[in-house]
Amino acid sequence: MSLLLLASLAFAQAPEPPPILGFTASSARAEREREAEFAKHIDKDEMRAWLKRLSAKPHAVGSPYQKENAEFILGLYKSWGVDAHIEQYDVLFPTPKERLLELVTPQKFRARLGEPPVRGDATSYVTEDQLPTYNAYSPDGDVTGELVYVNYGVPADYEILEANGVDVKGKIVISRYGGSWRGIKPKVAAEHGAIGCLIYSDPRDDGYFQGDVYPKGAYRNENGVQRGSIADMPIYPGDPLTPGYGSVPGAKRLSIKEAQTIAKIPTLPISYADALPLLRNMGGPVAPETWRGALPITYHLGGGPAKVHLKVAFNWNTVPCRDVVARFPGSERPDEWIIRGNHCDGWVTGADDPLSGQVSLLEEAKSLATMWKAGWRPKRTIIYCTWDGEEPGLLGSTEFAETHADELNRTGAVYLNSDSSGRGFFGAGGSQSLERFVTQVARDITDPETGLSVLDRARARALTATGTGPAAEPDAKKAAEAKADMPLGPLGSGSDYSSFLQHLGIASLNYGYGGEGGGGSYHSVYDSFEHYTRFIEPTFDYERTLALTVGASMLRLADADVLPFDFDALAGYISKYSDEIMKLSDDLRTQTAEQNKLLADGTLKASQDPTKPHVLPKPKDPVPYLNFAPLQNARAKLTASLKSYDSVKKNGLNLNASQQAELDRALLTTERMLLTDEGLPRRPWYRHQIYAPGFYTGYGVKTIPAVREAVEQRNWGEAEASIKIVAGVVERLAGQIDKATKILGG
Amino acid sequence: MSLLLLASLAFAQAPEPPPILGFTASSARAEREREAEFAKHIDKDEMRAWLKRLSAKPHAVGSPYQKENAEFILGLYKSWGVDAHIEQYDVLFPTPKERLLELVTPQKFRARLGEPPVRGDATSYVTEDQLPTYNAYSPDGDVTGELVYVNYGVPADYEILEANGVDVKGKIVISRYGGSWRGIKPKVAAEHGAIGCLIYSDPRDDGYFQGDVYPKGAYRNENGVQRGSIADMPIYPGDPLTPGYGSVPGAKRLSIKEAQTIAKIPTLPISYADALPLLRNMGGPVAPETWRGALPITYHLGGGPAKVHLKVAFNWNTVPCRDVVARFPGSERPDEWIIRGNHCDGWVTGADDPLSGQVSLLEEAKSLATMWKAGWRPKRTIIYCTWDGEEPGLLGSTEFAETHADELNRTGAVYLNSDSSGRGFFGAGGSQSLERFVTQVARDITDPETGLSVLDRARARALTATGTGPAAEPDAKKAAEAKADMPLGPLGSGSDYSSFLQHLGIASLNYGYGGEGGGGSYHSVYDSFEHYTRFIEPTFDYERTLALTVGASMLRLADADVLPFDFDALAGYISKYSDEIMKLSDDLRTQTAEQNKLLADGTLKASQDPTKPHVLPKPKDPVPYLNFAPLQNARAKLTASLKSYDSVKKNGLNLNASQQAELDRALLTTERMLLTDEGLPRRPWYRHQIYAPGFYTGYGVKTIPAVREAVEQRNWGEAEASIKIVAGVVERLAGQIDKATKILGG
Repeated sequence: MSLLLLASLAFAQAPEPPPILGFTASSARAEREREAEFAKHIDKDEMRAWLKRLSAKPHAVGSPYQKENAEFILGLYKSWGVDAHIEQYDVLFPTPKERLLELVTPQKFRARLGEPPVRGDATSYVTEDQLPTYNAYSPDGDVTGELVYVNYGVPADYEILEANGVDVKGKIVISRYGGSWRGIKPKVAAEHGAIGCLIYSDPRDDGYFQGDVYPKGAYRNENGVQRGSIADMPIYPGDPLTPGYGSVPGAKRLSIKEAQTIAKIPTLPISYADALPLLRNMGGPVAPETWRGALPITYHLGGGPAKVHLKVAFNWNTVPCRDVVARFPGSERPDEWIIRGNHCDGWVTGADDPLSGQVSLLEEAKSLATMWKAGWRPKRTIIYCTWDGEEPGLLGSTEFAETHADELNRTGAVYLNSDSSGRGFFGAGGSQSLERFVTQVARDITDPETGLSVLDRARARALTATGTGPAAEPDAKKAAEAKADMPLGPLGSGSDYSSFLQHLGIASLNYGYGGEGGGGSYHSVYDSFEHYTRFIEPTFDYERTLALTVGASMLRLADADVLPFDFDALAGYISKYSDEIMKLSDDLRTQTAEQNKLLADGTLKASQDPTKPHVLPKPKDPVPYLNFAPLQNARAKLTASLKSYDSVKKNGLNLNASQQAELDRALLTTERMLLTDEGLPRRPWYRHQIYAPGFYTGYGVKTIPAVREAVEQRNWGEAEASIKIVAGVVERLAGQIDKATKILGG
Repeated sequence: MSLLLLASLAFAQAPEPPPILGFTASSARAEREREAEFAKHIDKDEMRAWLKRLSAKPHAVGSPYQKENAEFILGLYKSWGVDAHIEQYDVLFPTPKERLLELVTPQKFRARLGEPPVRGDATSYVTEDQLPTYNAYSPDGDVTGELVYVNYGVPADYEILEANGVDVKGKIVISRYGGSWRGIKPKVAAEHGAIGCLIYSDPRDDGYFQGDVYPKGAYRNENGVQRGSIADMPIYPGDPLTPGYGSVPGAKRLSIKEAQTIAKIPTLPISYADALPLLRNMGGPVAPETWRGALPITYHLGGGPAKVHLKVAFNWNTVPCRDVVARFPGSERPDEWIIRGNHCDGWVTGADDPLSGQVSLLEEAKSLATMWKAGWRPKRTIIYCTWDGEEPGLLGSTEFAETHADELNRTGAVYLNSDSSGRGFFGAGGSQSLERFVTQVARDITDPETGLSVLDRARARALTATGTGPAAEPDAKKAAEAKADMPLGPLGSGSDYSSFLQHLGIASLNYGYGGEGGGGSYHSVYDSFEHYTRFIEPTFDYERTLALTVGASMLRLADADVLPFDFDALAGYISKYSDEIMKLSDDLRTQTAEQNKLLADGTLKASQDPTKPHVLPKPKDPVPYLNFAPLQNARAKLTASLKSYDSVKKNGLNLNASQQAELDRALLTTERMLLTDEGLPRRPWYRHQIYAPGFYTGYGVKTIPAVREAVEQRNWGEAEASIKIVAGVVERLAGQIDKATKILGG
């Protein structure tokens, strides 16, 4: 066969471009042209220059350079001719006045509590306005006590301590970072009676065990410290003094004492160089194997001789938090907002976190502005937000969302977030009504290293576990094998989508690239331009790819004929999560019965070494059978509603403009149906009944949280009450879908 | 109800003592009395004194003190009036003449290669006749090369190295101890072209990660070194120069060059203090997470800059190996031997390994001698053996077994071994025709810490996984839940049962207590009386319990009316093992197809980071379907034979003495049926077709080894041929059971 013939066959077989959700074939063609135009303006050198500019000095919320950065960004928008402004909120942001940590027995040692400059890292020498290492929203305190090692400091760890006869009452706990969000550690320690909390980065999780340390390699060196907030964000994020409403001038402010989210015991983060002398001098039982880190010592649970003195005091200042908000008004449906956000404040110079995401956001905005200048007008309104004060507690995004709650409730269609981003594989999480949408975007974006689509590359990763790489998630593997949609994981917390998704019920997404960089600069002085460009993303090819991925998403969301939601996956996930919880309660029942039996018949005692200080657990109340029927009926109703909807949804693209707008209104509020006004038990700010950060995980998501956490915490009454509430929102969602079906003529 | 009435009810309900396998109700009563008498003479203070005496000086094979120990033990037998003698074999036992290890680039470091005395440990100061740290049967060598870290140095590790583009050809490998028997490490390294091998104790597996180090705690300190043999024992154990026959005067001896079991490349064991500078200076890819130990460094695979110079030379001496053999002749069936063994040689002072088992053996023998003096005569002959030269390669037991092969083939009924033993839970492995027997013994022995039976305590352990304890084996858990027999694990190698079980086909057992001691004195200077009595077994209560457990076993085996074999469990295990292998071949087929597909369609390449030196694997030949039918038919035949046997086996106790003797003869040789004359492929010394040490595990057992290893090594032709051979031995076993059925009148 001649080459010519081969070529013509290839031409003949060239497939139609695949469809795009929410677009007709012809509007999809126009959309593809817009995306190609968008891509032309994405300039990775510009992103690199901005990253260097924005990370040149420390820029935490309230700092002089963060003000400069906000003004610089505003200036960019102005220079592009985009309608933009700074919104200022006044937020509580404590900074250290005094920090002291010393080992008092069995020998003296005073912790360094500092991160020295390292050769080759220019900004590590920029110490002006550099925030010392600390945990924001620790209370002031001056405590002395014996150390107890609590592993990651989550509730299950305290059960192990109890079984070993170790109590933290009146003690100072030392916990390693990891296993939960950091704010959980002092919270659970305080619940158990501890008087102080140290959090250190163990080199097992974050240091030389992972790879060569900075500046030789990417990983955390012995002096690196993870700063970070320990506000009780699972209660509510945002300014601790203005829960649920914007911290605008004149807003009522709680006293610091009244603020529910300020930590209960003095807490300080430390490096592993500072932790080593403390841990080495601890006695008591040897820590269980899974608790042991990579320091060259035997890890003990404590109970003497190590005793420490911890003193922390803070300036409890209110500082300005400056969000930069830009707007591309919609031409046809201006009251449907597609919102894009990424924060700009960093704990120190924050090159990776958050600027790697921020410069993508700016580059996207520039490209949109260029298209705007050339005459493009989005169908829906696009809002670009640069958030301030994310690090202390999602301050900028939360105060914005609370301040504009009514407007956002009316207009908010989708919120798309990013944060740190690097080199490697596309990762996304979010509202699962957008799973198919995200899959299609990933299908259409090219991976710069391989030339494959980023979807195929993510699938390749899900299908493989190389000797050195992480094993794939089973769900992702199954999906990849079936070439089904890319699984979209649910969102917990840890970045600025929280208010939009969990407080306001706006469908949300979170994007990023990663898996081939890595390192240990997180929340340290060493999160610098040098570190980022040496170890995380040297070429900026993936910075460009992130901009293209977000850009295509924003354009599709803004210009689709019909909002590109698809509810089959969401319904599947709701079923899956409720199945998980039913299984959880069954497993808990079996385990409880087994454990009680082993306790009652002496087996547990017989298995223990009588020369060691084991403490037998108390028998637990048996686990009743819970009435899951309301949830089962609700999901059956949702399935039925979807069956009708699916049979007519293709009509959506044939509706006239005003019918499409009506359909959009119905679709736009589907995520809202999943909220309740009352919110979750004991944390009413969180109103979403399907997704929330876990009360005891902090960042980690809990799906169907009211029911799941009630079961986990053995609160059977609350579990049954919550089942009904969740059934209610699932039925409301079904009802909303029925509305859409009706509009579609079903 | 009155207390009196309660008491009388309790009396009325007092159960009959449970039956004992092989005994009638009345002979069981007599047996219980003998066991009670036996227990009276077990004196833990005497055991402690002997342990101290025997461990006072270094006593490796060929050493002056080992000669003294043999003569001391012989003297004990003489003093008890027992017929005993020393059997001497002349064995090759190399000892170091020169040892040098130095880092030559990127910096100079000379390894210490020594274990200094430590305070409080008297024998650590006894340096006369102390063997330096070395691996016996390393060849002489003087090599210089780059270091490559090979993890545990098993074949799978080399696949990971290959995937990372790292080759060991012409290099010196550094492997950590663990993951396989040590002799596998230089063997596999040599197969891959390495020129030298270092083996070090990583503190992750054997050091401070596990617990406080000696002398503060029980675990290996930075200078502790694990000596040990690296003879290729999976080929054959015993004197390397006399394979398969006794190394008696006049026996033909191979030249050292001809000896198949001497290692191929110079090898040296080192401490983690000596390993640290080597590992710290290695470059190349970061080692996979599961490869990383607990040294405070980033583990690299190597490829410069670390280069070492290793020089070892040995005195290739022949030394006397002195077994002490004592005999209690049988009164009724003198030609049925119940053999007991434990070695006496240690690498240094060897308090735990092997003297903790040896002093139990001596105490048992003393008690039997006392009963003998009082008139007791065992029905069958009891042989007590103190083995020499176990450490270099099971020399004493192997040469004994080879020398007396004909006699043992005729007489050997059961061999019962022990070795190191400590505090905690009863553990046993062995011929699974003895599973029920062992369960009954464990049922009747009291745990000194809890007052429960050691069976119940082992079950308690199998049923629980405390926060700090190891999780139970699933099989053991299932058995414990069902109150079924205690699972008897199959034996690989690592102690003196190997020749009896795997070469001669004598049903064998291995006993020990442990799980509550622990530590890291293994094969070091610090395996001392002080270490043993501080950390492993301070009270000697479990030393007494071991003696009682073995004693009851020996008495039951020697005095049973009918040998207490039971074949149902064995048949079950044969089925289980063949099921495992069928599943293994199916899994291998699926995995191979999957892997080849991921390779062919580019997925594997797409999942890799193109900036890193990954090497794609080569496609593998597809896995054919193997003909397992012969084995399936054979096990069906065995099941049928057992059905008949089980229906008549209760008749055994009603036979007259000569019929019982005839039945015994049939039962005694059942284990023999599982041998073939040809032995395993490429290692004919190993003749047992159900149990063998793995060719690439060393100590770890491989069941149905010829088939399993052929499948693992993708040798399909050998797998099918071996299936037929194994089917043959299973049919022979069935035939032998048919013989027994006939004797029983079935």
